[in-house]
Amino acid sequence: MAMYHLSDMTWPEVKQALETVKIAIIPVGAHEQHGPHLTESCDDVLADKFSRKLGERLYPHVLVTPSISIGVSIHHIHFPGTLTFRPETLIAVIRDMVWSLKQHGIQKFLLVNSHGGNQSTLSVACTTLTHELGIEIYLAKTTASAKKAIQEHVKSTLFGHSCEREVSEAYYLAPQLIREDQLAPGDIQEGKWKLLRPGNAVQGTYFYDEMTANGCIGDATKASYDAGQAIVEEALGNIVAAVSQLLNFNEN
Amino acid sequence: MAMYHLSDMTWPEVKQALETVKIAIIPVGAHEQHGPHLTESCDDVLADKFSRKLGERLYPHVLVTPSISIGVSIHHIHFPGTLTFRPETLIAVIRDMVWSLKQHGIQKFLLVNSHGGNQSTLSVACTTLTHELGIEIYLAKTTASAKKAIQEHVKSTLFGHSCEREVSEAYYLAPQLIREDQLAPGDIQEGKWKLLRPGNAVQGTYFYDEMTANGCIGDATKASYDAGQAIVEEALGNIVAAVSQLLNFNEN
Amino acid sequence: MAMYHLSDMTWPEVKQALETVKIAIIPVGAHEQHGPHLTESCDDVLADKFSRKLGERLYPHVLVTPSISIGVSIHHIHFPGTLTFRPETLIAVIRDMVWSLKQHGIQKFLLVNSHGGNQSTLSVACTTLTHELGIEIYLAKTTASAKKAIQEHVKSTLFGHSCEREVSEAYYLAPQLIREDQLAPGDIQEGKWKLLRPGNAVQGTYFYDEMTANGCIGDATKASYDAGQAIVEEALGNIVAAVSQLLNFNEN
Amino acid sequence: MAMYHLSDMTWPEVKQALETVKIAIIPVGAHEQHGPHLTESCDDVLADKFSRKLGERLYPHVLVTPSISIGVSIHHIHFPGTLTFRPETLIAVIRDMVWSLKQHGIQKFLLVNSHGGNQSTLSVACTTLTHELGIEIYLAKTTASAKKAIQEHVKSTLFGHSCEREVSEAYYLAPQLIREDQLAPGDIQEGKWKLLRPGNAVQGTYFYDEMTANGCIGDATKASYDAGQAIVEEALGNIVAAVSQLLNFNEN
Amino acid sequence: MAMYHLSDMTWPEVKQALETVKIAIIPVGAHEQHGPHLTESCDDVLADKFSRKLGERLYPHVLVTPSISIGVSIHHIHFPGTLTFRPETLIAVIRDMVWSLKQHGIQKFLLVNSHGGNQSTLSVACTTLTHELGIEIYLAKTTASAKKAIQEHVKSTLFGHSCEREVSEAYYLAPQLIREDQLAPGDIQEGKWKLLRPGNAVQGTYFYDEMTANGCIGDATKASYDAGQAIVEEALGNIVAAVSQLLNFNEN
Amino acid sequence: MAMYHLSDMTWPEVKQALETVKIAIIPVGAHEQHGPHLTESCDDVLADKFSRKLGERLYPHVLVTPSISIGVSIHHIHFPGTLTFRPETLIAVIRDMVWSLKQHGIQKFLLVNSHGGNQSTLSVACTTLTHELGIEIYLAKTTASAKKAIQEHVKSTLFGHSCEREVSEAYYLAPQLIREDQLAPGDIQEGKWKLLRPGNAVQGTYFYDEMTANGCIGDATKASYDAGQAIVEEALGNIVAAVSQLLNFNEN
Repeated sequence: MAMYHLSDMTWPEVKQALETVKIAIIPVGAHEQHGPHLTESCDDVLADKFSRKLGERLYPHVLVTPSISIGVSIHHIHFPGTLTFRPETLIAVIRDMVWSLKQHGIQKFLLVNSHGGNQSTLSVACTTLTHELGIEIYLAKTTASAKKAIQEHVKSTLFGHSCEREVSEAYYLAPQLIREDQLAPGDIQEGKWKLLRPGNAVQGTYFYDEMTANGCIGDATKASYDAGQAIVEEALGNIVAAVSQLLNFNEN
Repeated sequence: MAMYHLSDMTWPEVKQALETVKIAIIPVGAHEQHGPHLTESCDDVLADKFSRKLGERLYPHVLVTPSISIGVSIHHIHFPGTLTFRPETLIAVIRDMVWSLKQHGIQKFLLVNSHGGNQSTLSVACTTLTHELGIEIYLAKTTASAKKAIQEHVKSTLFGHSCEREVSEAYYLAPQLIREDQLAPGDIQEGKWKLLRPGNAVQGTYFYDEMTANGCIGDATKASYDAGQAIVEEALGNIVAAVSQLLNFNEN
Repeated sequence: MAMYHLSDMTWPEVKQALETVKIAIIPVGAHEQHGPHLTESCDDVLADKFSRKLGERLYPHVLVTPSISIGVSIHHIHFPGTLTFRPETLIAVIRDMVWSLKQHGIQKFLLVNSHGGNQSTLSVACTTLTHELGIEIYLAKTTASAKKAIQEHVKSTLFGHSCEREVSEAYYLAPQLIREDQLAPGDIQEGKWKLLRPGNAVQGTYFYDEMTANGCIGDATKASYDAGQAIVEEALGNIVAAVSQLLNFNEN
Repeated sequence: MAMYHLSDMTWPEVKQALETVKIAIIPVGAHEQHGPHLTESCDDVLADKFSRKLGERLYPHVLVTPSISIGVSIHHIHFPGTLTFRPETLIAVIRDMVWSLKQHGIQKFLLVNSHGGNQSTLSVACTTLTHELGIEIYLAKTTASAKKAIQEHVKSTLFGHSCEREVSEAYYLAPQLIREDQLAPGDIQEGKWKLLRPGNAVQGTYFYDEMTANGCIGDATKASYDAGQAIVEEALGNIVAAVSQLLNFNEN
Repeated sequence: MAMYHLSDMTWPEVKQALETVKIAIIPVGAHEQHGPHLTESCDDVLADKFSRKLGERLYPHVLVTPSISIGVSIHHIHFPGTLTFRPETLIAVIRDMVWSLKQHGIQKFLLVNSHGGNQSTLSVACTTLTHELGIEIYLAKTTASAKKAIQEHVKSTLFGHSCEREVSEAYYLAPQLIREDQLAPGDIQEGKWKLLRPGNAVQGTYFYDEMTANGCIGDATKASYDAGQAIVEEALGNIVAAVSQLLNFNEN
Repeated sequence: MAMYHLSDMTWPEVKQALETVKIAIIPVGAHEQHGPHLTESCDDVLADKFSRKLGERLYPHVLVTPSISIGVSIHHIHFPGTLTFRPETLIAVIRDMVWSLKQHGIQKFLLVNSHGGNQSTLSVACTTLTHELGIEIYLAKTTASAKKAIQEHVKSTLFGHSCEREVSEAYYLAPQLIREDQLAPGDIQEGKWKLLRPGNAVQGTYFYDEMTANGCIGDATKASYDAGQAIVEEALGNIVAAVSQLLNFNEN
């Protein structure tokens, strides 16, 4: 399917595409441990693949940029290979990308984020850059909105990182990320992290190895292509609908 | 009830209190428009009052600090009187307070936040300062965990700012904030904000006057002392329980 | 007496007040040890109370903002409970407050400072923000200009912190700050600080505990309400006169 | 050939590799216009491909990281699609990557840079980070050391960007970057840039469109796979030799 | 007379001098308009000359560094030729100089400042760097302590910049700065500056051209070598005495 | 010869000079060890003297500013007396000088740099400030362009710091920098620096004492006034020609 990806275009091609492009999509991933069964680039690759599908669905109104391949992952730093940005570095990277694209006439931006640890920083980036650069900047968590498919397909009570849900998404979007012979459920530990999970009264920082000895949670052995397809496609539909409405709003 | 509040103590009194204090509570508010029926200091006062009640419940293990009276409120800036910090300013303020208290031997911190617009910035602050200063820093949204009481008492479908829920909390904690003769439901506007509300597939920044012409949402005329009491007390119970467990965890 | 204080107003009230307001007053305090006889919030409370009196005298031309309750107090950090801002944090806080108020149409600002340790930082803030934000920003030390009353009423040769003069001001403005049963003269130490006092040929940083073991100087037992009244009222008169002239100057 | 690339490994695989790895290679590219005949990701892809070859030659002593896909390209910003980092952003990105890898025990780093506009910034990064992080950080321009092959194979007098030399390298390393039907010589303009070329007495900033209307220089139509192979292989040999010696030096 | 000036020494000479040196003196000047009768480098030269005399008097315990030739002079920027540092730049310059000298074993520093506009920034620098770098840093205004000589010799009621006092100092320390045929009294203007002079109840920023049309104040035509000598020598005596005592203090 | 040097002028003189001045020259030096035979201020003095000669040649179109007497010299910090700026400090100093001069109407700037360690930082400064301040900023290394004279006169194979070439320049420009009785060849050490010299495949940071025990390289005993004159004059000619062309370019 046709899609505008900045990396694969020459400048005359970009110039022509800008005649119809209304919004740029910036994929934001991470580069961190994903247990024994997913490679460290998992979030980066999933953000990129998901964004390309958005680019296809919203062609010719969307321009997809190169992904930001590192995110805020300090809670995974005890596992070998994890890379992390400080929040201010991630914001600086986004600011410079948005500033550059604004020079080419783009006024609207959607950050497509695959990594929970980035979410607060990206929300701060939206607030800050909207006002500093005078542009509109939106934020979507790749598959967070696929509530129906997740409820139907994901059996693990705990999920969110290198889990049944994420491995399913990888089966659908990028199976090369998976070490099938290493699929394993999370090796969950006791710890204060239980008090601090999303939805609890108190939040806080903990290292991921306090929660899981092998770096994953839930039961990835139950993951499947079908679950991944259902989750990704539901989420794509939600985001395509929202972006379409946003673009229309601004035109009226 | 007995309570340690840093502002009301001399240094010899603080010195003695530090023998039992295990955690400092830093109230974080905001200083922004709250429609025609609440004063601009509403969030600051509610964070302070709520934190003092926590200090009483957790005495003598908690030291309450002066509140941070301004937050991230740029989305309210079009309404007269709103003050806003840039996210980096709010983080700098917290860093300096935490650094100072660490000099006095405190290692654990709870940010008690009453303003939704601060939440991402405070989450970034937790991540950053935990690692930069080598301390533990937790975050609680004042009454967000009072899910039962909110469901039971709050009738407005839209709430979150100068609304039925917040005015109820003010009735219970600080009635002097309320202009009873000005109580009014939100004057809701059409706009792209509907696409961007919490829980939607796409988030983003919008000015509050795009959503409501008088600066409030929901129906504040339905607020009551009883609703406020139920919400605040349920939330206090949740946070007291969580903090108690966290303090125990660290001792074992 | 009538007075505009931002914290106690709704946005429609602020909107109306802005029709006559010509200058905003930002009280700047500190949160630091004040010996055995004054609480740690002393400077914050005195700056606030003093500024409110200015707001009354200059009504309806002045809008008083919430105080900045922490200042530059690192020289007191060895005493329990002291909080300190780095100079750049204090400047950032002022910048954001001034920027916000400028959005509401205010072009003139007066910092009313009660803490000597803030003075250099505030002077730098005036220089920097005047040019950066294109506004006028003035600075007054609360009672420093009350030269006659100080000479007449203050007997201690050493004063300036939790001293005869400051306790007197507290008797007049905020007696709840005082532990009357703990009033004590400074427990002065030998040390290099004597070489570095204001007015000497060489200045420099020293910790306050090098100078005084109990954290106060002079003889606070000689403090009185009458002295406080005389000092505060003389200073108020001086500042009211100066501000009135400044406002007139700009109108011509 | 065997090679350690961080993106393609799980954390247990990284843990094992770290037993022999002595240096990390960080490819640094750019994302900027490359005339009508190369895509915007050219420098990023060439830095990555070149670094992977280094990783193969120096296996198992080298770990290749994900590339930094944007560089300092403000001089190309007038051409559609160019993205640019401010120098401080690029340094922040490198600092965070190096800091992360240091947590995993790596003490030596080689930046492999394909974009001339990055060179000064990377040199500053080497100086700064060596001292700030207490590590050793080296810098190589991908094919700059291939002096013999360049002299023998490159006929254009002007080269350095989307030129005969760069297209040749792309033929060898990543032919998918090339639009063969669009190959064109540079459309060179008159201008002050002639006074400021490398090697002249005075240097300075100019926009690339002051020099060339189509964004490329030299004559790319003369590029060939053979030239690319000769240039890349000579450079690889030089860098492999230098890195091997550096690793030996540190062991003695 | 013997004196250690860093600029005039080789490294083996510095190495030997460090055996007796206990404190470094850093002259801080400015580069700003000084009316029609003094050159723009006046403050820089006077700080340097004054510091060299201190170096002679305190030989072999003092090492004089190159001067910081630009200061905070934005209030003079409307006059041609004035250069100004932002306060943070001046602090950064001092931080780096102090950090460097600390590497060579020096632990005490005296800033010798000739320019009033620097005073607040330097005071902030002392506070900040004392704690950040773990050193002792002192501050002296060149001739401010010469109270007797100033009272006796200076007849102008207004002085402080390119005035009777400063021209006198130049006659004694650096007569080449003076355009004798251009000596003129200040061309004083009406303005709000009168409300904001040192010692008044309210301070604030004003441009120097609001105060004086020719850039100087007082009556420089009354300046003399004798007055300069008396002022400089009295101040030198005061600072030498204070530094000697400070050095002794630290030895006991 | 006539020359405009900012330090030696009053503001009315600067005002008049600005009628013909088209470019400002900012000398950039360093303050670092130069072996046993040159004083630490060598680079600062040479940059200043060289720039003054440029000012004479290009009179009345050039205004020479006070020199920046400290540069990026951390690689020399192990030798007593060396001062170093962090790269960001050097850029801040240049930014403030350029900003100030822009207020007086100057739009073009030439940095004349005598110290190799500054080169990358200055190149970054040119890129950054050109765009941030909207001015034109050029960079010249004092004598680097004197290729003929260097080839003819300099016999040492290794040169670049306190070497045959630099001592020759000092003989011609500032003989007071030289300790003739201490002239010595470099005391060269084995080390990894040999792998990292300019022109090699890999670059990187090393301390100067890893390369030379006495802090100099090449053979300074072969230096001469005649060599210095030839080198300096050839370089002056090159830079005068380039600047003249650049000024003409901008006029057309």
